[in-house]
Amino acid sequence: MRSLEELKLSLRKFAEERDWDQFHSPKNLSMALAGEAGELLEQFQWLTEDQSKNLTDQQLLAVADEIADVQLYLIRLSDKLGLDILAECTRKIAINADKYPIEKSKGKSDKYTNI
Amino acid sequence: MRSLEELKLSLRKFAEERDWDQFHSPKNLSMALAGEAGELLEQFQWLTEDQSKNLTDQQLLAVADEIADVQLYLIRLSDKLGLDILAECTRKIAINADKYPIEKSKGKSDKYTNI
Amino acid sequence: MRSLEELKLSLRKFAEERDWDQFHSPKNLSMALAGEAGELLEQFQWLTEDQSKNLTDQQLLAVADEIADVQLYLIRLSDKLGLDILAECTRKIAINADKYPIEKSKGKSDKYTNI
Amino acid sequence: MRSLEELKLSLRKFAEERDWDQFHSPKNLSMALAGEAGELLEQFQWLTEDQSKNLTDQQLLAVADEIADVQLYLIRLSDKLGLDILAECTRKIAINADKYPIEKSKGKSDKYTNI
Repeated sequence: MRSLEELKLSLRKFAEERDWDQFHSPKNLSMALAGEAGELLEQFQWLTEDQSKNLTDQQLLAVADEIADVQLYLIRLSDKLGLDILAECTRKIAINADKYPIEKSKGKSDKYTNI
Repeated sequence: MRSLEELKLSLRKFAEERDWDQFHSPKNLSMALAGEAGELLEQFQWLTEDQSKNLTDQQLLAVADEIADVQLYLIRLSDKLGLDILAECTRKIAINADKYPIEKSKGKSDKYTNI
Repeated sequence: MRSLEELKLSLRKFAEERDWDQFHSPKNLSMALAGEAGELLEQFQWLTEDQSKNLTDQQLLAVADEIADVQLYLIRLSDKLGLDILAECTRKIAINADKYPIEKSKGKSDKYTNI
Repeated sequence: MRSLEELKLSLRKFAEERDWDQFHSPKNLSMALAGEAGELLEQFQWLTEDQSKNLTDQQLLAVADEIADVQLYLIRLSDKLGLDILAECTRKIAINADKYPIEKSKGKSDKYTNI
């Protein structure tokens, strides 16, 4: 599929066909998403930072699976809440640009959101 | 911005300008992503499922912020690993369709990945 | 074992015997702990709140496994940092009592720390 | 306080006095716990492994706060489920000893539970 929009419609159909909407409250979806984020973490937990930059094919595939799972739940959650992910990201990047001016942020990590 | 691709380029520039690539190992980005997924959870933790379907404007904005944060780190992580999120999602949906055939999955929640 | 202290010594020996100290940096242990917290979440994600209060024996055992995993990593992390968990908890309860005076907090959930 | 048992009773009283039991379903507590595990992660996400072993006093205090939060929710969750944390940990250590025999596990990290 070629866009978040297409994925959204595909996931909507997927849930409808299986009668899964009953489980997909935003609360539950936030849990499922965080569970997948935890599985993503587990791929990296015993690797050094350098190793995490040089994954084997097998490791990369496992990571790709978890990245997809997080993305799919994020799309599903946003759909249920009527949010447009791209618009929210665009809004957030502008906030971050304000919060972390280039001159003051250069080479420094902020504890919380460094993106 | 109108696509994950545009967001990816924007985040790349954002990190370069601030000399933040040094912090953005896949390992570290997986942690940041999971931290944001935790913040997303916190928005919903004391709400009932019904309340989570009927957020106030203020609650929805807070949730939208966290969704954007998760998405931005997911894009950044995928970029660092050379993964195409849309391709991985398409691949994963096909796997899930195989794993959860409509007839057998109807109305049943699977403990792990229900999407 | 009858105390966190005994568990701590047991885990220390466990890691030493397997030469696992090399993996147990506080950073890595925080990831492993969050990964287990994610697995704990997964046990509950499709249950209603009522169902979560009435687990089957099988569900309870699966939950108990994850609770133990979180506890073991918490002990290991605290040991590596030289922190006394009971002392830190006692300190934190005092802070919380101050932060949430009975009269003002009665029946109200706070978004972040409600304990 | 000098034991998990004392902390459990103290937290029980704390919740009763504030009429917070209504929020403390196991499902909700698993979310709160994972949220705190996420905050713990955030303390370490931009640190190198070496830096995580040499925290400043200020960093250590912030980490100690999050460790306490995770522990308090773990106690509360276990109390609600009627589980004895120490007994579950003892049981789990025996399982892990079986799963990771010394000779086969020496110096090797397992992706999932390395404790």
